[in-house]
Amino acid sequence: MITRLSRLFLRTLRDDPADAEVPSHKLLVRAGYVRRVAPGVYSWLPLGLRVLRRVEKVVREEMDAIGAQEISLPALLPREPYETTNRWTEYGPALFRMQDRKGADYLLGPTHEELFALTVKGEYNSYKDLPVTLYQIQAKYRDEERPRAGILRGREFIMKDSYSFDLNEDGLKASYTAHREAYQRIFERLKVDYVIVAATSGAMGGSASEEFLADSPVGEDTYVRCVESGYAANVEAVITHAPEPLPIEGQPEAVVHDTPNTPTIATLVAWANEASVYGRPVTAADTLKNVIVKLRHPDGKTELLGIGIPGDRDVDDKRLGASVEPAEVELINEADFAANPFLVKGYIGPKALQDNGVRYLVDPRVGTGTAWITGADSQGKHVVGLVAGRDFTPDGTIEAAEVRDGDPSPDGRGLLVASRGIEIGHIFQLGTKYTDAFDVDVLGENGKPVRLTMGSYGVGVSRMVAVIAEQQHDDKGLRWPREVAPFDVHVVIANKDESSKEGGEQVAAQLDVAGLEVVLDDRKASPGVKFKDSELIGVPVVVVVGRGWAEGKVEIRDRFTGEAIEVPAESVVDSVLAQVRG
Amino acid sequence: MITRLSRLFLRTLRDDPADAEVPSHKLLVRAGYVRRVAPGVYSWLPLGLRVLRRVEKVVREEMDAIGAQEISLPALLPREPYETTNRWTEYGPALFRMQDRKGADYLLGPTHEELFALTVKGEYNSYKDLPVTLYQIQAKYRDEERPRAGILRGREFIMKDSYSFDLNEDGLKASYTAHREAYQRIFERLKVDYVIVAATSGAMGGSASEEFLADSPVGEDTYVRCVESGYAANVEAVITHAPEPLPIEGQPEAVVHDTPNTPTIATLVAWANEASVYGRPVTAADTLKNVIVKLRHPDGKTELLGIGIPGDRDVDDKRLGASVEPAEVELINEADFAANPFLVKGYIGPKALQDNGVRYLVDPRVGTGTAWITGADSQGKHVVGLVAGRDFTPDGTIEAAEVRDGDPSPDGRGLLVASRGIEIGHIFQLGTKYTDAFDVDVLGENGKPVRLTMGSYGVGVSRMVAVIAEQQHDDKGLRWPREVAPFDVHVVIANKDESSKEGGEQVAAQLDVAGLEVVLDDRKASPGVKFKDSELIGVPVVVVVGRGWAEGKVEIRDRFTGEAIEVPAESVVDSVLAQVRG
Repeated sequence: MITRLSRLFLRTLRDDPADAEVPSHKLLVRAGYVRRVAPGVYSWLPLGLRVLRRVEKVVREEMDAIGAQEISLPALLPREPYETTNRWTEYGPALFRMQDRKGADYLLGPTHEELFALTVKGEYNSYKDLPVTLYQIQAKYRDEERPRAGILRGREFIMKDSYSFDLNEDGLKASYTAHREAYQRIFERLKVDYVIVAATSGAMGGSASEEFLADSPVGEDTYVRCVESGYAANVEAVITHAPEPLPIEGQPEAVVHDTPNTPTIATLVAWANEASVYGRPVTAADTLKNVIVKLRHPDGKTELLGIGIPGDRDVDDKRLGASVEPAEVELINEADFAANPFLVKGYIGPKALQDNGVRYLVDPRVGTGTAWITGADSQGKHVVGLVAGRDFTPDGTIEAAEVRDGDPSPDGRGLLVASRGIEIGHIFQLGTKYTDAFDVDVLGENGKPVRLTMGSYGVGVSRMVAVIAEQQHDDKGLRWPREVAPFDVHVVIANKDESSKEGGEQVAAQLDVAGLEVVLDDRKASPGVKFKDSELIGVPVVVVVGRGWAEGKVEIRDRFTGEAIEVPAESVVDSVLAQVRG
Repeated sequence: MITRLSRLFLRTLRDDPADAEVPSHKLLVRAGYVRRVAPGVYSWLPLGLRVLRRVEKVVREEMDAIGAQEISLPALLPREPYETTNRWTEYGPALFRMQDRKGADYLLGPTHEELFALTVKGEYNSYKDLPVTLYQIQAKYRDEERPRAGILRGREFIMKDSYSFDLNEDGLKASYTAHREAYQRIFERLKVDYVIVAATSGAMGGSASEEFLADSPVGEDTYVRCVESGYAANVEAVITHAPEPLPIEGQPEAVVHDTPNTPTIATLVAWANEASVYGRPVTAADTLKNVIVKLRHPDGKTELLGIGIPGDRDVDDKRLGASVEPAEVELINEADFAANPFLVKGYIGPKALQDNGVRYLVDPRVGTGTAWITGADSQGKHVVGLVAGRDFTPDGTIEAAEVRDGDPSPDGRGLLVASRGIEIGHIFQLGTKYTDAFDVDVLGENGKPVRLTMGSYGVGVSRMVAVIAEQQHDDKGLRWPREVAPFDVHVVIANKDESSKEGGEQVAAQLDVAGLEVVLDDRKASPGVKFKDSELIGVPVVVVVGRGWAEGKVEIRDRFTGEAIEVPAESVVDSVLAQVRG
């Protein structure tokens, strides 16, 4: 079936939408792919829906190829399973919650670990049934605090989520690897530039979790990589290189100084240099900054936590958050200071924290034998030469300090550089967290119950449309790789004479018969408008039927390279097929 | 790709689920097509999802064939558009409502008239763009009071909804007719036995709204039809034949009688016969029953309404509800009786109602000149021979009395019989209700704005799976018409010897190469278990590879007719193809 622009439900826009900041958002709206209905909630118009379905198709094919089986769970879910795993609460305001007419609690599924665990529990009961991997491609809901960039971060979005169930750790690893490879194939077919980064510190043994990030300056995720070694990780997953312990003996005694009006690192460094405390220039890296936060634990209890990091670094909220999970970080307020008078703002030191039972964790750089200029716990006083392991002993270390360009790679093989990316996939060895919650056992080969081990894997399907637009567009408009283009070929009738019109119809019909998805610009608009729209819409191959038609020639344009070639009308199908399938 | 039952995520059940009452629900659960997650909320397992997708495909093809264009709107919708049309309130508790993290109101779309009207308004502005028909196939949400029968009446369900936009009435009628015909093709392809019924009284001019009902004893919709004329209608749409006016002159005076202890029609009739008031046997049809209800109008005001109907009939709540729309009917309670002492329970007559300003509507059978035995508005008293048009004049007529087998057809060409059906489609000439609400205008040919006129059309896609199961099953299990079967052919390896196993694999491979969707029962189960499962699952063609294989023979079974034929192994593909495509 030939799609005619004269009838297609499409109006392209000359101007960027006022609320759009990133190129994919601007172009997908201007080219008539999506429309905003509410913050983070979009409609898919015909062109957008076509691309979305083709992305889905690629994902589905690669999931089927690894033996995953498609099912479809509801989006409207009862509270109970999420209550069991505590996610009803943990998700906080990101969960859309509602009550039905009888007052029962429901939520809109943000991800379906609970339901898949229960589904497998409901059907399977023997080791012979395993392993099994199930997936769905379906609308998900998250009440994002800041929905942004159109469909890049929506509140209703399409995701492929899959879940593997295995009898043992080796099975889980095999399922994980199968997904990892399937995702690589998916993103290659979609022509996405991406990097795989470690998403956790690897404490669970190797790569318990990895993220696929699409390279993009508009990405919200920062990751670091080591050019020399190829190491790449989410900032949350970066492990700080801890220095070898330094000898304590021989280090000078710690001395408390009057340091009036030095509540900040900058003022403290200025004082230290003026007072020449070390007989060498002092930098912020010589100071120890003590940050106090409040942790809220899942049981609702709160706890003050002291964090000591070198004064030349800030705390990275994401790294801190990942380190204290499942507890949540809250800022401390004036009431907390009032209730804990030993916290002297601007002059907090390790001593008062530990004397008052506040847990105190330090950056790994604050190793045994390192000496610091830090607070002396009284107004206008700091201590110089406070040695870790001699004058204070932290309760442990914490990965909370920011990671910076030039930091050493955790693998010791180079330096880190920071990049930005968009999360397009996530693979996760969950282990038994959910199968424990719901007692998902099968009868093992030896007649004893076996607790299943689970993996979860996600691809942002609707986000992928924006990611491809983001990576592939140029200043004229969208450019779609052929696996996901809304049409295979865009035929433009570029002259108003009857002959060109008939020629365009004829060429479109031939391409249609050849099995291609054809869009035909049969509108009365000027050639200029038509060319501009064809560039904006971004079908990879454009056939122009115009002045040349009288001499039996048509032009074939490559939307990616911009190259145009003239071919004889009789070979247009072969030429287009070569380009589309090439 | 061959699907192997040894790996398919499927467990068939021997027993009916405890909560299932209707055959389709029992069988779809037993055969592993769907699983319940919450009341009216179901998961689709692999077999169910396959059938659902094939139903979708048929619907999509027929919508595309009439030039409808697919888009996809969100399910999560902001309150405002529904506030504009008052449906935020009118939907009552059937709407799933929620608030986002900022306190903004949202709903889960039950149907999308508002959003489609706004979508067209957003894109189109010239008469040249019209007509346009848009559709989507998507999850809908209604918080049904009584979700029932599995996926037959769910709270999350898949619907195809489409909306036509035209410049004028003729255009709307053409769009409506195109949909009507497309629906006929859809239901024919799906092999559904159905009837098209008038859904409204036709006051808007002919067939402003029709429903497609699948014949089914488990249907919730009652409709009537006239075998002689072919007329069919929802009970709400049946127009009662009004008798010709009778002469008033010569009729005896109305007489009030003491009728102690006759608060019911039965006791009143018994009294009247004992008193021989008419000198002939009196039946309930001689009495006039006056029912008082309370209407709640959209503006929140309430009103008492008196309804007079022949005593041999009851008020039909659905017909009454349709007649008073958009007002809603509430039952009156003791407080209402206390506040209106002129209402003498069991003895209410037209007089007190009209004397006290209560609007009084009567069944069309209560025509001018008809005489009635009815309440005399005082305890223990009735009046005999009260003549309409002489002793009381109703404020109008109302279609509220039940319709019964044997009632005359509105077309005067026979008698009505009642049947039960399941609503599977609904087509509706909406007119300008929604385009008025949102000022959906385009510039007309004459340069003046034209208000668009709209139609809305729905097919219950997920419900269709249940409807087909309901109509096609037999006592052994499901039976799927070939357009929607989860697989084209089900190959059963019916012997445990290596040769049969190889034979089954070989046959499955050949059928797969021939382009058929093949499921292969390669499990270690006994032939009996496999045959039972194949009957339960209901693939229309079953190929049995068993004892005959050694002699080069396989059996082909037709799941619908139960017939089995033996064919030479070398012709199995041709035979199956003939049966599948025949």
